[in-house]
Amino acid sequence: MSKNTLPSRSEDFNAWYNTLVVRADLADYGPARGTMIVKPYGWTLWENMQQALDKRFKATGHLNAGFPMFIPKSFIDRETSHVEGFSPELAVVTIGGGKQLEEPLIVRPTSETIIGHTYSKWIKSYRDLPLLINLWNSVVRWELRTKLFLRTLEFWWQEGHTAHATYDEAEQETLQMLEVYRDFARNEAAIDPFFGRKSDSEKFPGADVTYSIEAMMGDKKALQAGTSHNLGQNFAKAFDIQYLDKKNEMQYCWTTSWGLSTRFIGAMIMTHGDDYGLILPPRLAPFQVIIIPIYRDADQKASVLEVVDNLNRLLIDNDIRVKIDDREELTPGHKFHYWELRGVPLRIEIGPKDVVNKSVVVARRDIVGKKGKQVVSTDSVVKSVRNLLVEIQETLLKRATNFRDSNTHEPADYKHFQEIVSEGFALAW
Amino acid sequence: MSKNTLPSRSEDFNAWYNTLVVRADLADYGPARGTMIVKPYGWTLWENMQQALDKRFKATGHLNAGFPMFIPKSFIDRETSHVEGFSPELAVVTIGGGKQLEEPLIVRPTSETIIGHTYSKWIKSYRDLPLLINLWNSVVRWELRTKLFLRTLEFWWQEGHTAHATYDEAEQETLQMLEVYRDFARNEAAIDPFFGRKSDSEKFPGADVTYSIEAMMGDKKALQAGTSHNLGQNFAKAFDIQYLDKKNEMQYCWTTSWGLSTRFIGAMIMTHGDDYGLILPPRLAPFQVIIIPIYRDADQKASVLEVVDNLNRLLIDNDIRVKIDDREELTPGHKFHYWELRGVPLRIEIGPKDVVNKSVVVARRDIVGKKGKQVVSTDSVVKSVRNLLVEIQETLLKRATNFRDSNTHEPADYKHFQEIVSEGFALAW
Repeated sequence: MSKNTLPSRSEDFNAWYNTLVVRADLADYGPARGTMIVKPYGWTLWENMQQALDKRFKATGHLNAGFPMFIPKSFIDRETSHVEGFSPELAVVTIGGGKQLEEPLIVRPTSETIIGHTYSKWIKSYRDLPLLINLWNSVVRWELRTKLFLRTLEFWWQEGHTAHATYDEAEQETLQMLEVYRDFARNEAAIDPFFGRKSDSEKFPGADVTYSIEAMMGDKKALQAGTSHNLGQNFAKAFDIQYLDKKNEMQYCWTTSWGLSTRFIGAMIMTHGDDYGLILPPRLAPFQVIIIPIYRDADQKASVLEVVDNLNRLLIDNDIRVKIDDREELTPGHKFHYWELRGVPLRIEIGPKDVVNKSVVVARRDIVGKKGKQVVSTDSVVKSVRNLLVEIQETLLKRATNFRDSNTHEPADYKHFQEIVSEGFALAW
Repeated sequence: MSKNTLPSRSEDFNAWYNTLVVRADLADYGPARGTMIVKPYGWTLWENMQQALDKRFKATGHLNAGFPMFIPKSFIDRETSHVEGFSPELAVVTIGGGKQLEEPLIVRPTSETIIGHTYSKWIKSYRDLPLLINLWNSVVRWELRTKLFLRTLEFWWQEGHTAHATYDEAEQETLQMLEVYRDFARNEAAIDPFFGRKSDSEKFPGADVTYSIEAMMGDKKALQAGTSHNLGQNFAKAFDIQYLDKKNEMQYCWTTSWGLSTRFIGAMIMTHGDDYGLILPPRLAPFQVIIIPIYRDADQKASVLEVVDNLNRLLIDNDIRVKIDDREELTPGHKFHYWELRGVPLRIEIGPKDVVNKSVVVARRDIVGKKGKQVVSTDSVVKSVRNLLVEIQETLLKRATNFRDSNTHEPADYKHFQEIVSEGFALAW
C-alpha cells in the first residue's frame, strides 16, 4: 500500500485532502495558475450530481438555457453592491480578433447582470411570469489562494435565475430551492446540512437575503455548500425588468438566483473520506461495484473470468454501475488499495474457491477489514448488492449526522460561543 | 397567422432562416456583439442531441472530463499550423484580479494545445493507451459576420481528444467517430449526410487529415455538420506526448480530435423546415406532442380538460414528451400556428365532440392541412402516437435524402462540375 499511503486525516486534514484529490484521480491543476482539470473519474461523479439536481430542477418547473460567457463591462457596474463585490475578482478580455476592444468584456463571474438585461427584453406581461431558468456552465473568479474543488479560478456550477410578480413568490422560490439543495445533500450525497440565513456581511453582493446550506467537514469546520438568494428588486431596477400587471400598470419584477458548484465535491470528500481514501455515497459513485478476479494460473483464470463476466453483465442489466479490474500487471492486493483510495462502495472478489462454491466475497468500503466482508451465494448476489448499497448510503448519512451533532453545541453566552466555534458548530443563525 | 408569417423559404432562404430561429424561440443574440443566447426551447433540443451523442461516445469507450477555458498564450504558438489557423480569431484575457497579467490567457478556441500539455503528463506507458476523453463545453472564435447557430463568437460543442500507440489505431478512431456522427445524423436528426475527406486547404489547422459529414441544406448548399481529425504526431511532437512501449523504448503518441456543435441545430432547421416554420425530428424534439383543448363554455371546458389531463398523464407514463397548451388568452387557431412554427411533430386536438365520441384528432406537422389529420379512438391513442412519431421520423429522412439525391450529380468534366456546384452537390471528394 506504500504508494497509496495518505497523510493521516486526523493529524493533517489539509494535507490529507490535497493529496487525496490528486491521487484518487478526481482532479488536477491546469497550466494557467489556479485553474482546475476535472479528470474523468471526478467528472463522472459531477455528471451523477448534475443528473440528480437537474431532475429536481425540472420537477419544480425549471428549464435549462445557454447564456454567453462574455458580459460587457458596463453591465457589471450597474448594480452597486454587485460591482463592489465582484470587481476585484474579474477576468477581462481586452483583445478580440487581433484588435483592442472598445468596451472590454468580462468573463462571467456569475450571470445576474446579463440575465437582468435579457429578462428585461423577454418579460412584457404578467403572463410571462414566473420565468424559471437554470444554466449549467463554468464561471471565473480571480482567486489567489486556490484549493482543488473548494476554491479555483474557474469552477463548474449551475446558476438558477427566476423572475416573479410578487415578493412572496420570489421568497417562496428562494426557500424552495434551498430545500431542493437540502434534499439533494441528504438523499444523494448522504450529508444532512444545516441551513439558514447568512449575515448581511456574508450575503451575495446584490441580494436582499442569502440562504445557504452548510455542511460540517471532518475537521469540524463549516463549508458553504449551496446558496439561494432573494434578490428583491435590486436587479429588476438596475436592468429595468418590468411587466404589465392585470390592471395594465407597469411593475418591477422580483428576482432570485441560486447555485451549487463543484465545491460540493469537496464537501463529500471531506465529510465521508477516511485514512484509506474516498468513501463515495453509492447513489453518486461513478462505480458502485468493482469486481476483482483472483487466480494463479491459466486454468483458474479462464474459469474465474467466465464467472466475473457473467456477474458483470448481470449487474449491468440490473442498472448497477459496475467495473471489472482485469489488469494483468497488478496483484489483487494492489487493486484492493487502488479502489479503496477511489472510494468505490462495494468490492467483489472472485477466486477459484468461489467459483467452486458458487459464491463471491463482498467487501464494504465503509467498514474496512474483516468486519465489512461477507460471503454471498451467486444466486442472491444482485439482491445482496442492492441491499448493501442502500445500507452503505444510510450508514454514511448516519455517521456524518452523528459527527455533526456531537460537535454542535448551544451556546450559553458569547464567551461560551467563542469557545465552541473554535471546535465545531454553534447553533446561532 | 399574421404575427407568425415568415419570409418565404423558397424566395428568400436567408431571411426565412434568420426570422425563424428567433420567432421559434430557439435563440437570440447576446449583448456582446456576435454572442448567442440559446433559449430554453433551443437548449432542450441541444440537451436531447447531447444525450443521443453522449450515449454513443460512452458505448465506444469514451469518458467525459472538464478542462479549463483559459490557455496560456505560449501554448497556442507551439504547433505551427495551429497558431497560423487560429491566431486571427482569438479572444485574449490581459487583466485578472485588477492586474495586468504577465502572460495573457487565451479563451479556448479548441483544446488540442491544453490537452497536449496535459496528456504529456498523464501518459507514461503503453498501458495508459488508448486515452479516450470527451469534453462538453463552449469555445470562442472571433467572428465578424455571425448568424445564429451557424457562426457565432461563442458556440457550444463537444470535443473528443484521444491518444493512441499507433497510426492505425488513431486512423481507426478518426473513422469510427465520423461513423458515430453519421449514425447520429441519420437515426436521430433524420439527415443522411455525405461524408468524406476535406481538401488540404480546408482541413483543421494541425491535422494530417480531416474527415467531415456534410449535409445538403434546403438552399442546396453544403453545410459541414461534424468533423473528425487524424492529428498524426503533430501535437504529440509539439507537446511531447510520449509513452514507453513494450520494449521499453520511448515513442510519440498518435492523436485525434473530433467535434460536433450547436451549428448542427442550424442544419436541422434548414433541412427540415418549411414555410410554416420548424419541423423537428421526433427523436430530438423537446415536445413530441402538443395537446390543444377546444371549448366554448365552462361546462365544455371542464369535460374537455379532464380528458386532456388524462391523456397527458397517459402519454407521460409511456415516455412520450408531451405538453398541454391551456393558455386562456389564445384561440385554438393561434395555438395551432404557434406550435407549427415551433415544429412539434404531432398536435392533438380535443373538443366537446371528441369527448362524446371517445376520440381525438391527431395532426402531423410534416403533412400540413387535412391530409395530415386523422381521428383516433382514445383507446388506441398511445399506439397511434408511437407509430406516427416513427413514421414522421422516417418521412423526414426520406424527404431530405430524396432532395439531396435529386440535387446531386456526377460531373462529366470540370466545366460540368462548375455548372452543377452552382446548384447542388457534385460527387467529387
